[in-house]
Amino acid sequence: MSATARLSLNQATIKHADLETALSVTREAGIESIGLWREPVAEVGLEVACRMLADSGLRFSSLCRGGFFTVEKEPSRRDALDEVRRAIDETAALHAAGAEGSAPVLVIVAGGLPEGSRDLAGARARVSEAIAAVAPHARASGVQLAIEALHPMYVSDRAVVSTLGQALDLAEAFDPDVVGVVIDSFHVFWDPQLLQQIRRAGRGRRIASYQVCDWATPLPADALLARHYPGDGVIDFGSMTREVEQAGYRGDIEVELFNADIWARPFAEVARRTRESFADAVTPYMLSTTAK
Amino acid sequence: MSATARLSLNQATIKHADLETALSVTREAGIESIGLWREPVAEVGLEVACRMLADSGLRFSSLCRGGFFTVEKEPSRRDALDEVRRAIDETAALHAAGAEGSAPVLVIVAGGLPEGSRDLAGARARVSEAIAAVAPHARASGVQLAIEALHPMYVSDRAVVSTLGQALDLAEAFDPDVVGVVIDSFHVFWDPQLLQQIRRAGRGRRIASYQVCDWATPLPADALLARHYPGDGVIDFGSMTREVEQAGYRGDIEVELFNADIWARPFAEVARRTRESFADAVTPYMLSTTAK
Repeated sequence: MSATARLSLNQATIKHADLETALSVTREAGIESIGLWREPVAEVGLEVACRMLADSGLRFSSLCRGGFFTVEKEPSRRDALDEVRRAIDETAALHAAGAEGSAPVLVIVAGGLPEGSRDLAGARARVSEAIAAVAPHARASGVQLAIEALHPMYVSDRAVVSTLGQALDLAEAFDPDVVGVVIDSFHVFWDPQLLQQIRRAGRGRRIASYQVCDWATPLPADALLARHYPGDGVIDFGSMTREVEQAGYRGDIEVELFNADIWARPFAEVARRTRESFADAVTPYMLSTTAK
Repeated sequence: MSATARLSLNQATIKHADLETALSVTREAGIESIGLWREPVAEVGLEVACRMLADSGLRFSSLCRGGFFTVEKEPSRRDALDEVRRAIDETAALHAAGAEGSAPVLVIVAGGLPEGSRDLAGARARVSEAIAAVAPHARASGVQLAIEALHPMYVSDRAVVSTLGQALDLAEAFDPDVVGVVIDSFHVFWDPQLLQQIRRAGRGRRIASYQVCDWATPLPADALLARHYPGDGVIDFGSMTREVEQAGYRGDIEVELFNADIWARPFAEVARRTRESFADAVTPYMLSTTAK
């Protein structure tokens, strides 16, 4: 059994690779699954992307991303919801094209405060309304929306969903087959309530995706690019991974790295290091290394 | 009644001023209270500092700071605790020297992960033990330890106390006269549980200090220097200030700005802008503008 059978390379980790390159780099590194982003899929078109994915033999672990629907005014709000519905369609198509064993997951990043607004509570309420608006389409398409809590340092410009507990509060208004959560180590490791919220997510069958990357200081000048290979920072992947596994999660585990230094390296080297770091820092704490 | 009678200028806002300059700049700006830092006090010596403070006629709103006691190994741990005890003594002396109306508050910043450690839970447990170790000295000295939750982006290198709720969990093991919390807008505004935790803090008489400064993105290259004048960012000072006031807090409200651009400006201009921004962004939401 491969120690990395459940590893998925999120395409953002090799950001400058086009889709065809990303698929071949992933496969050639012996990684069995890939998380895709909408932009490189759109570059070749959805139909071609699905064919390329099917040919690769890889599983499709998630599409990144829908959301950014905290806007208040029309028509921006309606446009944002339509965009999420298109992302749902893409997720369904890509899931059907990927190899067996992955869930049809669309990562939802809420969006930050609208320009000029200080109304965090209002923006958060609109996230709930927006999910309610697109949930029927997700259900009809067999797609699970996975709400991702982002680190609180991104609250104003990226995501007003800041903790796993808050993501679960939002998700629990819906059927778990339709709305779950992403647990991304980088975003949530600091949370004093982390382990109890992972258990709560498990009880509710809400864990749609587990993503691993590491945190180190000092943060780079661009705080978006602060992610490191698992094991290269301070995150305790032992306690977190054990808790996620004990909560019943057996899906793909993505490594998603935003890091200018990593992006500047050859793709094959990055994929190899991703696999090695995962095997060293994450695999030892998994209850099952078998892909579903 | 002055709209800024409860305003206190935290000395960090005019970081490059020595103590004598900081006191005169504060008084000349019509600000009645000052928050001090240990280093500029030590520069002139505690006795001289107390005399200068008494001569200034200003209130003393807090001393920054004690803490950094997450270290595990001896003698570092014992040294850290002794250092906090000295900071307690300094707080008591400065409080006695300041004008009537302020509380004897020592701000406690926990410290981050020890070098090479990934054990956040262990570091957090040691914070609790460290507070228990110094609490008797605080009680005997009539000083209130004010645990400050720092923004989660500082969790690994500055403070493993990341939320107001966690600070209250720590504080509630002690008498509220001995251990309270700081509510610093910059560090906690993002928290979905903020208002309920402020109410909890009020019920327990735990609010030892309220500090206001603003959050704006993009963050600067050095994430420590990301603070802005109240009103210059995205924080809703209305809901937060009303909740703090309704929770019963009537003490000094500090403005503490870490910002290289602000530090580069003339001290008198900074003090004036601090006062103006406070009057515009904070005062309108206070239930009482009278200093105690």
